[in-house]
Amino acid sequence: MKQLKINNETKLSHLERRFYKIRNNKIFELFVISIIVFSALMIGANSYDVSPTTLQVLSILDIMITVIFLVEIVIRFIGEPNKRTFFCNAWNVFDTFIVLVSLIPIEDSELAVLGRLVRIFRVLRMVSIIPELRILINSLIKALPQLGYVMLLMFIIFYIYAAVGTTFFATINPTLWGDISISLLTLFRVMTFEDWTDVMYETMQVYSLSWIYYLTFIFFTAFAFLNMVIGIVVNVLEQERQLEADLLNEHNENADMEELKKELAEIKALLQKR
Amino acid sequence: MKQLKINNETKLSHLERRFYKIRNNKIFELFVISIIVFSALMIGANSYDVSPTTLQVLSILDIMITVIFLVEIVIRFIGEPNKRTFFCNAWNVFDTFIVLVSLIPIEDSELAVLGRLVRIFRVLRMVSIIPELRILINSLIKALPQLGYVMLLMFIIFYIYAAVGTTFFATINPTLWGDISISLLTLFRVMTFEDWTDVMYETMQVYSLSWIYYLTFIFFTAFAFLNMVIGIVVNVLEQERQLEADLLNEHNENADMEELKKELAEIKALLQKR
Amino acid sequence: MKQLKINNETKLSHLERRFYKIRNNKIFELFVISIIVFSALMIGANSYDVSPTTLQVLSILDIMITVIFLVEIVIRFIGEPNKRTFFCNAWNVFDTFIVLVSLIPIEDSELAVLGRLVRIFRVLRMVSIIPELRILINSLIKALPQLGYVMLLMFIIFYIYAAVGTTFFATINPTLWGDISISLLTLFRVMTFEDWTDVMYETMQVYSLSWIYYLTFIFFTAFAFLNMVIGIVVNVLEQERQLEADLLNEHNENADMEELKKELAEIKALLQKR
Amino acid sequence: MKQLKINNETKLSHLERRFYKIRNNKIFELFVISIIVFSALMIGANSYDVSPTTLQVLSILDIMITVIFLVEIVIRFIGEPNKRTFFCNAWNVFDTFIVLVSLIPIEDSELAVLGRLVRIFRVLRMVSIIPELRILINSLIKALPQLGYVMLLMFIIFYIYAAVGTTFFATINPTLWGDISISLLTLFRVMTFEDWTDVMYETMQVYSLSWIYYLTFIFFTAFAFLNMVIGIVVNVLEQERQLEADLLNEHNENADMEELKKELAEIKALLQKR
Repeated sequence: MKQLKINNETKLSHLERRFYKIRNNKIFELFVISIIVFSALMIGANSYDVSPTTLQVLSILDIMITVIFLVEIVIRFIGEPNKRTFFCNAWNVFDTFIVLVSLIPIEDSELAVLGRLVRIFRVLRMVSIIPELRILINSLIKALPQLGYVMLLMFIIFYIYAAVGTTFFATINPTLWGDISISLLTLFRVMTFEDWTDVMYETMQVYSLSWIYYLTFIFFTAFAFLNMVIGIVVNVLEQERQLEADLLNEHNENADMEELKKELAEIKALLQKR
Repeated sequence: MKQLKINNETKLSHLERRFYKIRNNKIFELFVISIIVFSALMIGANSYDVSPTTLQVLSILDIMITVIFLVEIVIRFIGEPNKRTFFCNAWNVFDTFIVLVSLIPIEDSELAVLGRLVRIFRVLRMVSIIPELRILINSLIKALPQLGYVMLLMFIIFYIYAAVGTTFFATINPTLWGDISISLLTLFRVMTFEDWTDVMYETMQVYSLSWIYYLTFIFFTAFAFLNMVIGIVVNVLEQERQLEADLLNEHNENADMEELKKELAEIKALLQKR
Repeated sequence: MKQLKINNETKLSHLERRFYKIRNNKIFELFVISIIVFSALMIGANSYDVSPTTLQVLSILDIMITVIFLVEIVIRFIGEPNKRTFFCNAWNVFDTFIVLVSLIPIEDSELAVLGRLVRIFRVLRMVSIIPELRILINSLIKALPQLGYVMLLMFIIFYIYAAVGTTFFATINPTLWGDISISLLTLFRVMTFEDWTDVMYETMQVYSLSWIYYLTFIFFTAFAFLNMVIGIVVNVLEQERQLEADLLNEHNENADMEELKKELAEIKALLQKR
Repeated sequence: MKQLKINNETKLSHLERRFYKIRNNKIFELFVISIIVFSALMIGANSYDVSPTTLQVLSILDIMITVIFLVEIVIRFIGEPNKRTFFCNAWNVFDTFIVLVSLIPIEDSELAVLGRLVRIFRVLRMVSIIPELRILINSLIKALPQLGYVMLLMFIIFYIYAAVGTTFFATINPTLWGDISISLLTLFRVMTFEDWTDVMYETMQVYSLSWIYYLTFIFFTAFAFLNMVIGIVVNVLEQERQLEADLLNEHNENADMEELKKELAEIKALLQKR
């Protein structure tokens, strides 16, 4: 009995080493990427009017892709030397979730939409596979908290203007200013300059000074937005400069100076000794 | 009599110390912030069609919020060690003003709109409470004067184009070019690219060369705007560099050089003496 | 006779000194600026429907302003120590031209429009009076040549797309693609994203692949524009860095080094001598 | 026979030297540029309604331009010292191709459009002639790969949103969301803010929460776009800094230090020797 267990463990460990190699194999990675691209193309193909035969082919291909993805995740999991950390990585959790949900048959009309959505989100696996995209996303997420307070300020501006807009303009056009959430959407529209003059001219017929409302709003949001952009640029440049400064300090200039001083002190001592 | 006064003073001083502690308490701050958020949500809720019962609840809650804000301002004022500087801070004046105007009952139909507006502007108290937002607003205000001359130049461009536009296009479409203020608004619209071709095509039917007017206007304003943005970016980067330079100078390299020179002079003196 | 001439010269020289003082007087400058602002306001007032009485008042004020400007230019000219350089300054030429054309009576219906335009362009005298605005304009003009080649490239892109557009789309919508100049205007419109999809959907009904034309055009122009902006930013930053570097070099570090080396050489010589 | 060959070679070599001189002649270059500009103007003129006589003149001029271009290419080719590298330069290949295709008579109605297009693309020869434009284009092309991953990420965002949009909105408006390629075009339109609210309001009548779809899409693409722009700016600045750093290192500060240390060591040795 014990013998068997050891055998099993050895076998697993053998598998583990083998799968670890597969995992880090460039060809394996390229194969998975091409499968993801293929699945993306299939989603695109599905959106066109296709003959029933093609549909059948597509559904068979879909099953194949699901199986390949399942096998891939299993290889990844077994190939992971430290099994506990596997699910600490958010991308692994995402991959597993997407693959598992894909297993649910989409025949059922109620879950059909969910099934289609999950198939679409399989394209996101591209990000989890290609390290450069993962780094990009991570750096985007890291940049978010810095923007926190500017975003909060912008939201306060939006909220106050939406409340004022609802108070005054709700009776003029309920579709645009009916309640605070609709007003927020209308203000976002104004910020993107999308037919904002139509919105303005309408309210100006009742309150002829309401252009002040729109112009100040545009100025405030543009200014806050500009501030945000500049904040990011400065931040990125600061990081670059920091990196550069660290690099320069590796060759420490101060150390040179200290050495020179020490040498001079020694010479002086030699001279004074005599 | 004198005894009483001293007693009063002691009591006040006792209160002052107590309130000073409350003022700087993190929990007290969080409580005030959550009350502001709650009051903001109430304003939002008010914009929807709500049952009379809810309206009554909301009006009671409104009174409670007003009372809490009043108590908070009083605590802040008493907790202020130096009473005279309290109203030198523009944010304190703003807070007090907002709270005092909130006390006016909003039943009166004439003041109802004012009452609602004041309740909306209570959201701005968020800025006066959260230091990071206060810093952000202050830095925005500080950045304004640098833009002064670019803004003036932009206004001159706008004014000249508006005057020219009124002269030529007033008879074509009085709604857009009737007088100089309407023309200014129309030009702002053109600057945001909002249906600007409609405006242009209309005048091109009379003056077929009027596209020159619009294109030069767009070029001038875009160029001035670009200049403004670059001005801000360069300014911010300059400040950062200044900060960095100051930091570097703390470790003064020149001082090192001076020291080296002095040492050498001493050695030379020692050698020459003999 | 000679005596008279000398007297005249002395008188002129006396006037010159006096006017030179006036010219550089801060109050005189402020007075001229306020007159310019006043004349700008008058232009604005003229654009509204005003009563005949007001019109009469405005025309009298206009004559006064013209006279004041004339006197001001004369003072400036006499106050100029070196008369020959007066007209080398483009701003002086501009000022003189504007004032002289203002002298033409605007009753004449043929010249009425010219008269009004000249009065509008008097607002530009603001730029010639305020030094900061003059510097701003000069720096804008200086920045233009750097953009020369990007502008040329952009024009080549526009021209090729306009020619292609005219070739294919002229029969679909002659109003938008009739000849090459109209096509250029339409492409500028597309670049500003102004109802560009309407233009595209129209041509897509005939050439279903024409979206490629629009998308590549947007990509090319956006890329060229981005390049232009980055070019300006980098240029401005370079200038700032150069200025800074020049400042640093005033305290020459190399000189320090040279001095140290010389000192050491002397010490060595002293030691070797013995 | 051999004599003849040598004679030929000498003749060719003589021609080569002569044409090499012509090639690098400034006047020759200016002449070619003016011919290109002239051919561009002719294309423009062709787009207007012109009399048959003018058309005939234009077609004769067109033949002349084609001949001039052909002669120019031949001069360039013969003037090239190393004939093999001539077609390694993409611009030379492009020039030759354009000129050769121009030789095909445009009478043939089938090839007429191709003939016109080739004549339009002759304007691009401007880029191959003016070195500054060539440098600009090359630097644009060099900047592209850096953007590769951001572009890929953006495309993934677009693709997923297009797939989701097709799934939900295809039945609402097949013109905008019919299949995945139309959806991609619609999303590009939303990204340029072109009447995007019309698209949104339409779908919001069925799915009232679909504003989330549009707002998140705008946020994601705006963020990715911002990231791309910042990436380019930082990259350009980095290159500038690198150039500057290389320049500084030409005068090597470390070398100075090393020299000082050596000197000191020598002095110490001198002192210790005694």
